[in-house]
Amino acid sequence: MKWLKSRKMTTTARPDSEPGERIDALGIRDWQIIQREDEFRFSLDAVLLAHFASVRSGARVVDLGTGSGAVALFVLSRGAGSVSGLDNNPRLAAMATRSADLNGLAGQLSFVCGDVKQIDSYYPVGCCDLVTTNPPYRTLSAGRLNPSATVAQARHETTAGLLDFVRAAGFLLRNRGRFAMIHLPERLTDICVELRTAGLEPKRLRLVHPFSDRPAKMLMVEAVKGAKPGLIVLPPLVVYQAPKQYSREILAYYK
Amino acid sequence: MKWLKSRKMTTTARPDSEPGERIDALGIRDWQIIQREDEFRFSLDAVLLAHFASVRSGARVVDLGTGSGAVALFVLSRGAGSVSGLDNNPRLAAMATRSADLNGLAGQLSFVCGDVKQIDSYYPVGCCDLVTTNPPYRTLSAGRLNPSATVAQARHETTAGLLDFVRAAGFLLRNRGRFAMIHLPERLTDICVELRTAGLEPKRLRLVHPFSDRPAKMLMVEAVKGAKPGLIVLPPLVVYQAPKQYSREILAYYK
Repeated sequence: MKWLKSRKMTTTARPDSEPGERIDALGIRDWQIIQREDEFRFSLDAVLLAHFASVRSGARVVDLGTGSGAVALFVLSRGAGSVSGLDNNPRLAAMATRSADLNGLAGQLSFVCGDVKQIDSYYPVGCCDLVTTNPPYRTLSAGRLNPSATVAQARHETTAGLLDFVRAAGFLLRNRGRFAMIHLPERLTDICVELRTAGLEPKRLRLVHPFSDRPAKMLMVEAVKGAKPGLIVLPPLVVYQAPKQYSREILAYYK
Repeated sequence: MKWLKSRKMTTTARPDSEPGERIDALGIRDWQIIQREDEFRFSLDAVLLAHFASVRSGARVVDLGTGSGAVALFVLSRGAGSVSGLDNNPRLAAMATRSADLNGLAGQLSFVCGDVKQIDSYYPVGCCDLVTTNPPYRTLSAGRLNPSATVAQARHETTAGLLDFVRAAGFLLRNRGRFAMIHLPERLTDICVELRTAGLEPKRLRLVHPFSDRPAKMLMVEAVKGAKPGLIVLPPLVVYQAPKQYSREILAYYK
């Protein structure tokens, strides 16, 4: 989302990077991430999601639709024991694997190239404590498709939709495991219906507003597998306290 | 809700009021409302709901679970053509009828004593443009029941639940008619699921927070019968800008 650009990145050219790649500072610790100009690059969404998710120390995490692995890296930095990222784009999965190596994290962070609709081909049932996802937001009928097929795939539900991500999370989670997702407010009803159908009960919801007097642009929801109904709607997360000036909460994420 | 007390009311004793009754200023125009100490009395919820609802000039409105008729009066003041309030408590329905008379509104405002579960006994299908409701919020398993059976009934789902109110709204509304409800955030998933099942698509949602940094205490949702999916989450409504000091938006409701 354009309004959710991440903070200005420090980009480094490295001799071992492939043509079209760049190496960006993640903005947390001294970790770096390899990204491509012609592929979906992470934005503030990834930072928000990783801070919203309840990451318990040592947790086993799967990040669905991980792209270049930003959410996976952020979740690992928050204390997860191991994170596996899944993406159907082979170039991104390979690049994310090299990012893990680059940071010396190969023991805790791995990436799989695969389709969320065939989740049982890659992971055993009930294998994780937390599933995160920053999935494609838009249905095929909504908005202009990006001319790059792989960027379109990261933004629109061209290959997998909300239901596929929710079902995959339901498969992966142990009982009482948590599913944290960032998505569009316009999909909230779909999200509630699909989560409940999958036995993932929404427990925490947070709306992200660019300014306090503007409609929400994003939502973050955490569902717990097998939990009773009952949702807390957290205080709104306001991104800007003035034009081009991040709120204190957002700035604190980068400390 | 205790934290959502309405502004201090001006109460008048009148010779024609029945024992236990009091006549309160509604706070809008010079309208008055008859209430009882031993029955559910309106609070800020009613004011919020009436301001949230899209009340078109001349609209035909039904207010479900109307109690003493506060929401019905507020919605009428916002330009509705006619409002009918339904409540299953005969004493409240009779009292609300006398409130309508007291304000000279009997031609536009009427009350019916009846059960939302038998909505087709009182109204024809598709008869209205807008349905409002401030229903009992809590499931029977949640919270202490008020010792007064009729107050308990206004707060807890002792006689009718969310599903009954949603179904009744679905029956009453014409195609593209609107349903506006105030409820608890903890029920949001139930609300989304029930609305969609009834063909009432949530289109506008607003969370009500006591303070900007506190979880939401209430939600207001507007659904449109037969609409396509797609929800707008409005800016949060913050009730207090400082302890005991209403925000400007709340104060403006009383101007």
